[in-house]
Amino acid sequence: MRMVDLIEKKRDGFELTKEEIQFLINGFTNGEIPDYQMSAFSMAVFFKGMTKEERVYLTEAMVQSGDQIDLSGIEGIKVDKHSTGGVGDTTTLVLAPLVASVGVPVAKMSGRGLGHTGGTIDKLESIKGFHVEITNDEFIDLVNKNKVAVIGQSGNLTPADKKLYALRDVTATVDSIPLIASSIMSKKIAAGADAIVLDVKTGSGAFMKSLDDAKELAKTMVDIGNGVGRKTKAIISDMSQPLGFAVGNALEVKEAIDTLNGQGPEDLHELCLTLGSHMVVSAEKAADYQQAREMLEESIQNGKALESFKTFLAAQGGDASVVDDPAKLPTASYTIAVPAKQSGYVAEISAETIGVAAMVLGAGRATKESVIDLAVGVVLHKKVGDPVQAGEALVTIHSNQENVQEAMEKIYSAYRIVDEKVEKPTLIYTEIQ
Amino acid sequence: MRMVDLIEKKRDGFELTKEEIQFLINGFTNGEIPDYQMSAFSMAVFFKGMTKEERVYLTEAMVQSGDQIDLSGIEGIKVDKHSTGGVGDTTTLVLAPLVASVGVPVAKMSGRGLGHTGGTIDKLESIKGFHVEITNDEFIDLVNKNKVAVIGQSGNLTPADKKLYALRDVTATVDSIPLIASSIMSKKIAAGADAIVLDVKTGSGAFMKSLDDAKELAKTMVDIGNGVGRKTKAIISDMSQPLGFAVGNALEVKEAIDTLNGQGPEDLHELCLTLGSHMVVSAEKAADYQQAREMLEESIQNGKALESFKTFLAAQGGDASVVDDPAKLPTASYTIAVPAKQSGYVAEISAETIGVAAMVLGAGRATKESVIDLAVGVVLHKKVGDPVQAGEALVTIHSNQENVQEAMEKIYSAYRIVDEKVEKPTLIYTEIQ
Repeated sequence: MRMVDLIEKKRDGFELTKEEIQFLINGFTNGEIPDYQMSAFSMAVFFKGMTKEERVYLTEAMVQSGDQIDLSGIEGIKVDKHSTGGVGDTTTLVLAPLVASVGVPVAKMSGRGLGHTGGTIDKLESIKGFHVEITNDEFIDLVNKNKVAVIGQSGNLTPADKKLYALRDVTATVDSIPLIASSIMSKKIAAGADAIVLDVKTGSGAFMKSLDDAKELAKTMVDIGNGVGRKTKAIISDMSQPLGFAVGNALEVKEAIDTLNGQGPEDLHELCLTLGSHMVVSAEKAADYQQAREMLEESIQNGKALESFKTFLAAQGGDASVVDDPAKLPTASYTIAVPAKQSGYVAEISAETIGVAAMVLGAGRATKESVIDLAVGVVLHKKVGDPVQAGEALVTIHSNQENVQEAMEKIYSAYRIVDEKVEKPTLIYTEIQ
Repeated sequence: MRMVDLIEKKRDGFELTKEEIQFLINGFTNGEIPDYQMSAFSMAVFFKGMTKEERVYLTEAMVQSGDQIDLSGIEGIKVDKHSTGGVGDTTTLVLAPLVASVGVPVAKMSGRGLGHTGGTIDKLESIKGFHVEITNDEFIDLVNKNKVAVIGQSGNLTPADKKLYALRDVTATVDSIPLIASSIMSKKIAAGADAIVLDVKTGSGAFMKSLDDAKELAKTMVDIGNGVGRKTKAIISDMSQPLGFAVGNALEVKEAIDTLNGQGPEDLHELCLTLGSHMVVSAEKAADYQQAREMLEESIQNGKALESFKTFLAAQGGDASVVDDPAKLPTASYTIAVPAKQSGYVAEISAETIGVAAMVLGAGRATKESVIDLAVGVVLHKKVGDPVQAGEALVTIHSNQENVQEAMEKIYSAYRIVDEKVEKPTLIYTEIQ
């Protein structure tokens, strides 16, 4: 088999076999197939796509390129959730303890990563003492005992995907739905979940700007998941503005606590209930969506969700008292209101620009070496559709520097206020399975 | 400027500027732009093509990537000819002395290369004493004196093209008309000709199998040539069977002598007159095609064409007496007839397979290190449309080994003989300028 022939086959629109895709991924991973051939192949995929079968073979080959996490020591059906990203997405912090509180085992492997705010682990580290340096055995014991634990990414997971993603990033071959889908799914599958619930974002702040593209990506990922024997479903949710109010690490932990307490922002609450209900059904802890949703609502009302969060934090060394007293979380030195310059209705909030404002304040990482300030960030007071009076605070900036000029400019440029009334955007578009 | 942005621009169907194409070719040539980006770019060009302007910029950038030959010391308009390749193409050997004999300066830079037979220099080295190791000054003096000289390829011509071609070859991006056209044209332009006549081959033995593809390639090259200020025209000629009768180095020299003497194969004679007439017109040595053709016909009839060949050979150390006594050329030990197995009409002769037969006998180079046997090859006696009797020789094999089993099998598999009468194929399809 010669790589040049496989590139030509794809270029000319033919379907590759399982053996050909394995040859390609194995060769690329071990360095026998050079980058220049893989990038030409990726560009051919950009133009010609991949069949349903090819996507499954590609995902399987990437999963098999490295270690696979064995979660068989955990009782029950392990359900993982994945969001395609956005700004102010606090769902993981809420969902993990929430679904655990109704008996769904949540064995979460998480990272730090780059972005406007830190990853899930950074956010949790706002809580004094909390750590993810636990052994695999401890991790599995904790999930069996408390139904929820988080461990840092370890081992050599999907090296083929890591190498391919780095190459796609510099060869303009990122925007290919089969390649995006197999990249995401290979990581989830290697991480060992039995079932996967996907939250595919759409709108101006999402990678998939159009609903049609989001649907195609969701359908592609669902088909891959089911194709490799992991029960997979997806919902498509809005990212035309930031989710919830808070963007920043400790600020999001506080918002997660509020949400677990039934006091969170409406959109975050609704999205968590929707995703959580699907997770509960996938874990076979409820007969249908309606029953699952009632279980989760009850768990929030009777305090079990919050209790589950406390147990989880304490089990990994965290000071669980922050849940009852969020003032113990890291706090910024300055809180500065950003007043509206005009009255009207909020027509638009660029999620991307709000994210950059938080990053400018120090909430995120521009490079792997950046140090995150866990206390800082922004809290929105007005969302799309809200009426606003001139002088009223649109946003509160939480900063450790007094000069917040740059962040404030970003925030003003993110907001668009108009005279006419504006409809609130749809939060959840559709469900795909 | 970032290469990844240029790849994306091309991928999305936008036109690159002159500066962007220069950045890309300069960066690739000096190693700042890695192969993996250039191969992704090439694949994007495969799918999205290039505009007329982009092709000119690309060609110019490749020309400027290395040395350019200065032929300004030669009087008159220097016309170069290029054929897109095929089997048994002896036109250069005929055309150089033929057009020189009517006053067109031919300053030919040639190579050895890989293929079924050697390059022009290998063929000429069948003539005892002939050599191309002359200085640039000698070369220019010879052309001024005799109107024709051949020099070996020297200097660092179009390094960008060399590097890009090697990369395209292993990334399934060879078959892109803009890339093929700019590759060919950059070499011709760097070699210093004022005007270029192209012979674009079509048919089963050519790179462009279909007439439409050949026309597109021809038009693309003509536009590039004229776009950079070199008067360029093209004809499209048949390569559905080998051209002429001889395939092999000394055998082709013999055939060239016959043709310069007015005794050559009909198709080779006609093609040389057609290409030669265009060269004469481009060099402004005749007012129109008809006049040019009459001049060339006269030169063959009155012996001036043959005389020009002798002068050229002698000037570069060759034994010009071979022209009158071709028996002095290298001769193979065995001549073996390949008899027809059935009577009928020749319907097809695979040029490619005949080429392989000659190569198996030792006439060509499989790798740069291969040593060519100048004496060996094949001579066809029957061409498409010819009637044939069972037992009559289709081909004579010239070999230095007695066992010619493999070559013979190739020849039988190349020929298809049918019962019904067959039309001779069109030799010259059209002219493009």
